[in-house]
Amino acid sequence: MRKWVMGMLAAALILGLAVPALASGDPTGANVPADKLTAIGLNFVWVIVAGSLVFFMQAGFALVETGFTRAKNAAHTMGMNLMVFLVGAIGFWLVGFPLMFGNVGALATLTGTNVLSSGLAISGWNIIGTKGWLLTGEAYDVAVITMFFFQMVFMDTAVTIPTGAMAERIKFSAVIVGSFFISMLLYPVFGNWVWGGGFLAQLGPKLGLGHGVVDFAGSGVVHAIGGMAALAAAIVLGPRIGKYKKDGTSVTIAGHDLPMGILGTIILFFGWFGFNAGSTLAGSDLRLAVVEVNTMMAGAVGGFAALMYWKAKSGKFDIGMMCNGALAGLVAITAPAGFVSPMIAVVIGGIAGLLVVFSLEFIDKKLKIDDPVGAISVHAVNGIWGIVALGLFADGTYGAGLNGVAGGVTGLFYGNAGQLVAQLIDVGVIVVWGFGLSYLFFKGYDKLFGLRVTPAEEIAGLDLPEMGALAYPDFVLAEEQAGAEAEPAAPHRVAARAYAD
Amino acid sequence: MRKWVMGMLAAALILGLAVPALASGDPTGANVPADKLTAIGLNFVWVIVAGSLVFFMQAGFALVETGFTRAKNAAHTMGMNLMVFLVGAIGFWLVGFPLMFGNVGALATLTGTNVLSSGLAISGWNIIGTKGWLLTGEAYDVAVITMFFFQMVFMDTAVTIPTGAMAERIKFSAVIVGSFFISMLLYPVFGNWVWGGGFLAQLGPKLGLGHGVVDFAGSGVVHAIGGMAALAAAIVLGPRIGKYKKDGTSVTIAGHDLPMGILGTIILFFGWFGFNAGSTLAGSDLRLAVVEVNTMMAGAVGGFAALMYWKAKSGKFDIGMMCNGALAGLVAITAPAGFVSPMIAVVIGGIAGLLVVFSLEFIDKKLKIDDPVGAISVHAVNGIWGIVALGLFADGTYGAGLNGVAGGVTGLFYGNAGQLVAQLIDVGVIVVWGFGLSYLFFKGYDKLFGLRVTPAEEIAGLDLPEMGALAYPDFVLAEEQAGAEAEPAAPHRVAARAYAD
Amino acid sequence: MRKWVMGMLAAALILGLAVPALASGDPTGANVPADKLTAIGLNFVWVIVAGSLVFFMQAGFALVETGFTRAKNAAHTMGMNLMVFLVGAIGFWLVGFPLMFGNVGALATLTGTNVLSSGLAISGWNIIGTKGWLLTGEAYDVAVITMFFFQMVFMDTAVTIPTGAMAERIKFSAVIVGSFFISMLLYPVFGNWVWGGGFLAQLGPKLGLGHGVVDFAGSGVVHAIGGMAALAAAIVLGPRIGKYKKDGTSVTIAGHDLPMGILGTIILFFGWFGFNAGSTLAGSDLRLAVVEVNTMMAGAVGGFAALMYWKAKSGKFDIGMMCNGALAGLVAITAPAGFVSPMIAVVIGGIAGLLVVFSLEFIDKKLKIDDPVGAISVHAVNGIWGIVALGLFADGTYGAGLNGVAGGVTGLFYGNAGQLVAQLIDVGVIVVWGFGLSYLFFKGYDKLFGLRVTPAEEIAGLDLPEMGALAYPDFVLAEEQAGAEAEPAAPHRVAARAYAD
Repeated sequence: MRKWVMGMLAAALILGLAVPALASGDPTGANVPADKLTAIGLNFVWVIVAGSLVFFMQAGFALVETGFTRAKNAAHTMGMNLMVFLVGAIGFWLVGFPLMFGNVGALATLTGTNVLSSGLAISGWNIIGTKGWLLTGEAYDVAVITMFFFQMVFMDTAVTIPTGAMAERIKFSAVIVGSFFISMLLYPVFGNWVWGGGFLAQLGPKLGLGHGVVDFAGSGVVHAIGGMAALAAAIVLGPRIGKYKKDGTSVTIAGHDLPMGILGTIILFFGWFGFNAGSTLAGSDLRLAVVEVNTMMAGAVGGFAALMYWKAKSGKFDIGMMCNGALAGLVAITAPAGFVSPMIAVVIGGIAGLLVVFSLEFIDKKLKIDDPVGAISVHAVNGIWGIVALGLFADGTYGAGLNGVAGGVTGLFYGNAGQLVAQLIDVGVIVVWGFGLSYLFFKGYDKLFGLRVTPAEEIAGLDLPEMGALAYPDFVLAEEQAGAEAEPAAPHRVAARAYAD
Repeated sequence: MRKWVMGMLAAALILGLAVPALASGDPTGANVPADKLTAIGLNFVWVIVAGSLVFFMQAGFALVETGFTRAKNAAHTMGMNLMVFLVGAIGFWLVGFPLMFGNVGALATLTGTNVLSSGLAISGWNIIGTKGWLLTGEAYDVAVITMFFFQMVFMDTAVTIPTGAMAERIKFSAVIVGSFFISMLLYPVFGNWVWGGGFLAQLGPKLGLGHGVVDFAGSGVVHAIGGMAALAAAIVLGPRIGKYKKDGTSVTIAGHDLPMGILGTIILFFGWFGFNAGSTLAGSDLRLAVVEVNTMMAGAVGGFAALMYWKAKSGKFDIGMMCNGALAGLVAITAPAGFVSPMIAVVIGGIAGLLVVFSLEFIDKKLKIDDPVGAISVHAVNGIWGIVALGLFADGTYGAGLNGVAGGVTGLFYGNAGQLVAQLIDVGVIVVWGFGLSYLFFKGYDKLFGLRVTPAEEIAGLDLPEMGALAYPDFVLAEEQAGAEAEPAAPHRVAARAYAD
Repeated sequence: MRKWVMGMLAAALILGLAVPALASGDPTGANVPADKLTAIGLNFVWVIVAGSLVFFMQAGFALVETGFTRAKNAAHTMGMNLMVFLVGAIGFWLVGFPLMFGNVGALATLTGTNVLSSGLAISGWNIIGTKGWLLTGEAYDVAVITMFFFQMVFMDTAVTIPTGAMAERIKFSAVIVGSFFISMLLYPVFGNWVWGGGFLAQLGPKLGLGHGVVDFAGSGVVHAIGGMAALAAAIVLGPRIGKYKKDGTSVTIAGHDLPMGILGTIILFFGWFGFNAGSTLAGSDLRLAVVEVNTMMAGAVGGFAALMYWKAKSGKFDIGMMCNGALAGLVAITAPAGFVSPMIAVVIGGIAGLLVVFSLEFIDKKLKIDDPVGAISVHAVNGIWGIVALGLFADGTYGAGLNGVAGGVTGLFYGNAGQLVAQLIDVGVIVVWGFGLSYLFFKGYDKLFGLRVTPAEEIAGLDLPEMGALAYPDFVLAEEQAGAEAEPAAPHRVAARAYAD
């Protein structure tokens, strides 16, 4: 073993043994009164189970992104989606979580025994948190650690969204660095502003704009931020070789395994039941049932709307449109899920299903930004739609006391223009911080180290040069020359194509 | 955007904003006394988590059906399995749920705070329910909405079962319409009769036939009804081209991805733990443990029995038989899961594992009905076996008060012939309503619009003409001419086949 | 139907009806006081949900093992992974569970209403348990049955680990018999010694060695025992044809579907959240949050450490190393998960990630044992590391009263050498019992019936001769001659290989 490995291990060991000795939290729940143990336990079980479902979404993202891209890059695309979790967990543990939730007030609440059935305390115009490092000291506490678990898998969603937009041309090493960037800086700082008691949460109590920015489970915090990073990365990287003809016409590059993409979509849908309803942070918050049904209906209507709209337009039942429509509905309902009725969830999901189709066309054909799996349209565009939808449709039944403001959250159509203003400010900050900082990062990285593999590697496929192995070495693949312009000559394809013409 | 899209959205928006204003339910659980919140919360968490597992079964069905059919139709087969959920959710929300659970008494109970730890109230000889439209008004209530979530994913299972029997030759558009038919009419009306306080549930209290029809988690309501629709569809559609030779001999059409079929089976098994035990509708009903172990043992023994029986007969360890045997055991235990001990679950599962093998052979070779994945044998035949098994083996330990009848549910072998009679009536109604109505529907649809793609499309594969894309465009597929009679010439196949002969 | 089938069914039926009549347990939870029902229900729900996640790990094992081996054996490899569950459930129900947990004291506790929030009682120097047969009599009890559910899926993990080491050359029939051996004898007897109140658990109370052997969720009981069986089987079987050149050089045999391997890894990680935290056996044990985050961090750091170390060494981001590193971290944290802080989990996981790489190289290149998916390095080596790590790092915050010893569990670095001694004794017993008995079994079976398929079958692939069907009949596979030494000539491979050279 190399010396530096030994050195690192020794240092980690010393740190590991020394720091927890300072523990002042409640690492076993011993401070919870016996008569509250079942109630608190229910909340823990709910949050942990829901968080586990959210973790499983990583498989969904991996499958969607890999299935809708090409076989020659499948190990690379799928590999990114496991790696970002590994890196993200380390980055969020090292720096991200304290930045996001380490405000004095917030951490005090977190260490209280009722953390999971109450909101976070707010104090001051915080910009970042400063406590909870390495989950040691007062953060070696069952409540803080439950919160870490749930928030970590949320961060993981944000960090994996850009991989879809960067697929088939980015260096694996650049994705590692980019994942540290997102998990340690981009995501947690913005997260602090909305969920950690930061300034966007305080637009309500301090400036009277409704409840301040409200985002139930992260249409903005998670999806739009991840989508903005995807947009920035896609712009800096440029399109895949063969994606646009010399005259600018967009070429469809078919996904190599549509059943894989569908499986991924179903897994994402499944995980979303944890993502959204788990965000009650309490199993005794019965509103979680409404959250689930809103999630179900928005996703279903979104997928059906996109499927049928595209069928009317193109004559085919397009798998990609159906999947992206369902995901768009899910992204859009994520912010308002707790604040609207199922009827409104249907409306929000239906609009999302159409919006994602228009957006996919617009970004691909007009803006000519190459986003292999539609991550920008699904997560950025519909994330923003979700934030705005909350400002329009919140019906006042839920959210009393959120961010320290009395009464339920109400949107424009229920007479509260201030909430919509807060949500629009949120959109602005997402664009400036999410897109701006990401663009600076990816542009800077590209200048310094280079984001993109060589053209020869890209044409042959990234799997061998980057991962050292083919994804499917036992299968004969169709030949492909210089991207998608030259058509493969596999007999099945040729025979089948007769029907398409 | 087209005008009709705008018009539809405007109408939905107005409806969406107006209707919830009439809400008289309990949309946040505010009416639940504080000291019952943990108890009710536990039930909500249990039902929501179990329901999420049931939702995930959609992935299992998709994989089983796609893996056990051919590559040239994989996008179509897998696509159906996501689409039926989208359509089913809309249909069940629009019409199905109120028809199934909207009886006066049932809905009153549903809005009570103890809904999830008690049975449904029964009143009159109901045929359909009439309340709970669009989850608005008094149905905008956390208890009703929890019930909707769980019942919706159950319906989803019924709606996806026929896709396996219709695979590789049906028009995608026909499956959309068929899914509305099942989710809005076929399933919920029958469901009302057994679970919604309808007339089959009342055979006990009103006619003294045991507890009336009892079906713990839906061997009949879900699986046999779905299986009957599968049977009707398969008959109306007719066999795939190449499935039967001119002399009537059945040709085996191999599934294109056996690992995919196995993954689907494991996912279905996993989801079944939610399907069956979740049907207690209460986390504080400790019988759920017995339900789980019964489920586990019946599935395990069913799979092992089918595997070994087929090995004894054919000399091979057949993947399809093992998977279908496990699924048959799971289907059969679904009705009696709460009412028998693990020892009896082993017996029921073992019989199911043999029954499915006999049924697969009989339907394929004698009846010459082409059911590509064995949906009829697994769900219809073993669904009926499960209903009957309950009438034979229910041991009286559980079900006191069910359908308003005192004492536990007991079957013939424990001295109660009346229960078996009720179960047999259930079987009769399933055949008449489930098969009869489905046959009328599919036959009528076929006459009016045509159920089946053209022979040329079927031979080339449904993916391009129907979905506009190939499932696996990057892979070279073995050539196939005119169905399965002419053998492909791929080198691996030829080499490998030497061992089979 | 053959007569013996009828006879077997009749016998099973008679037994099934007669035995439960003797029931003296609590089959519905009727003996639980109403005011404890929510508390007990929470524990049941937690254990059942966690156990369901553990069941789902079967899909993860199936995918990892199949994805990292060759297409020509994919139906066989994947088929083994479903079959072992079916067989294991039967074996564990027939014999294993009573042997493991049927000690007088243990069973008495199990039938108590507080079973799931307390430890097991211990009495005498037990070697095996003797009660609980067929879950009948006093074992037809909700608490016992919940325990069975959870312990069965744990056993299932042990029984599936060896399939990875035996893949691509073992007879399917031998795996069936081997699975009965593990589920009925190897696993449950050892399990009794640690978890069933057996002699290893009593090294603490009787000999003063800390708390006796402590193994939170089974680094030793499950993973190292399974890994030892894998080691024995791999030795007895010998390497695959083509794995070692005549000069002894190890040849890399590439996995046929890397995305499948990654999906399996993510599913295993997901299931591990149930595996580890579910082992609290109580949803009201708030320590479960720490267990989850320890699990998450150890897996993440393990995967990242292996990925980066291999990148530094070979220049490639290796998918197999990343996956095995994550799994190694998960295996290693499984024993200490409840007894250390997240900071230490990072240390344990990081060491595991490096250890697995060294072990994979050592076993493959030095010992020349052919373990197709690295099961020995992941489960045996890191299982042992996990047991030892607990003896080093347990920080005393948790485990008060475990095995009847007062105070929390503390390891060497917190001043308790006795605990480390107990853990080292555990390692010794694992090697002697786990490897020794497995070696005797596999060697004996090989002599009597033969473990391995013929060379011709192995070269052509096991799917047709063993399973009667190809895994991927519609795809053209690359040709392969006599194992991996002769390279395939598929165009994509050739083109892509240019980059590797």
